Amino acid sequence: MSSTKSDAFAPRGAKAQIESGLDFTPKFDADGLIPAIVTDAHSGEVLMFAFMNAHALALTIETGVAHFWSRSRDKLWKKGEESGNILNVVEMRTDCDQDVVWLRVDVKGDGKTCHTGRRSCFYRVLPLPADAPAAAHLAFAPDADT
Amino acid sequence: MSSTKSDAFAPRGAKAQIESGLDFTPKFDADGLIPAIVTDAHSGEVLMFAFMNAHALALTIETGVAHFWSRSRDKLWKKGEESGNILNVVEMRTDCDQDVVWLRVDVKGDGKTCHTGRRSCFYRVLPLPADAPAAAHLAFAPDADT
Repeated sequence: MSSTKSDAFAPRGAKAQIESGLDFTPKFDADGLIPAIVTDAHSGEVLMFAFMNAHALALTIETGVAHFWSRSRDKLWKKGEESGNILNVVEMRTDCDQDVVWLRVDVKGDGKTCHTGRRSCFYRVLPLPADAPAAAHLAFAPDADT
Repeated sequence: MSSTKSDAFAPRGAKAQIESGLDFTPKFDADGLIPAIVTDAHSGEVLMFAFMNAHALALTIETGVAHFWSRSRDKLWKKGEESGNILNVVEMRTDCDQDVVWLRVDVKGDGKTCHTGRRSCFYRVLPLPADAPAAAHLAFAPDADT
């Protein structure tokens, strides 16, 4: 259980209230995590995808700077803390059932969000339709940096 | 375990191969699911977020039409099968560690992807920074349809 400070958010109400109301009542999964989609506030490109626990989500809301929960390192992760590529959140949204968040961000530093040194983690395309999914091969996206 | 046909995809290799190679070796979580981000191929807007099992992912690749795994109904879900709002996949990408997919789609029918009748599921904004996350309130996004 990676959740801490989960009491930072209100308990969830009825379906209609979750979908149509203005109370923010995020849903965390069995591991205490909520998915976060990160897009570039300027280009709209999807940059990365990660998870937040309640603590990371609360810190993101309080500071306007994206924080996540690193599942591989099992610790709070302030994105860019080492690289300088801090993500300033320009806008944060949630979806109908409040079980995912979408961050539109301004990337500081050299603008790279992927640990491979690329601007975006989504640098490969899977051409489709493809007759045999098992045999499908990726291709580097034309707009991906090296 | 909601995964079926998980043998439709190749086993995962070493980290370098997953990140830099062109073999598509998607990672499914403990429940046999992989997250899928869906954006509008024309506007770039994030429309919805859902999960796929191996079968749904294979069907998406084979047909070029988005299929998901409905966790609430515990069944394969061809998005738009009832509403007519089929998602034709214009481009599919995966990320560095191949544990999420991003679909850029052309929405058929009346163009609405949210079950609430809206174009996008992300129709509410959480203004930030906010001093007290527990007291933070959502607002309807100015560009959200009703």
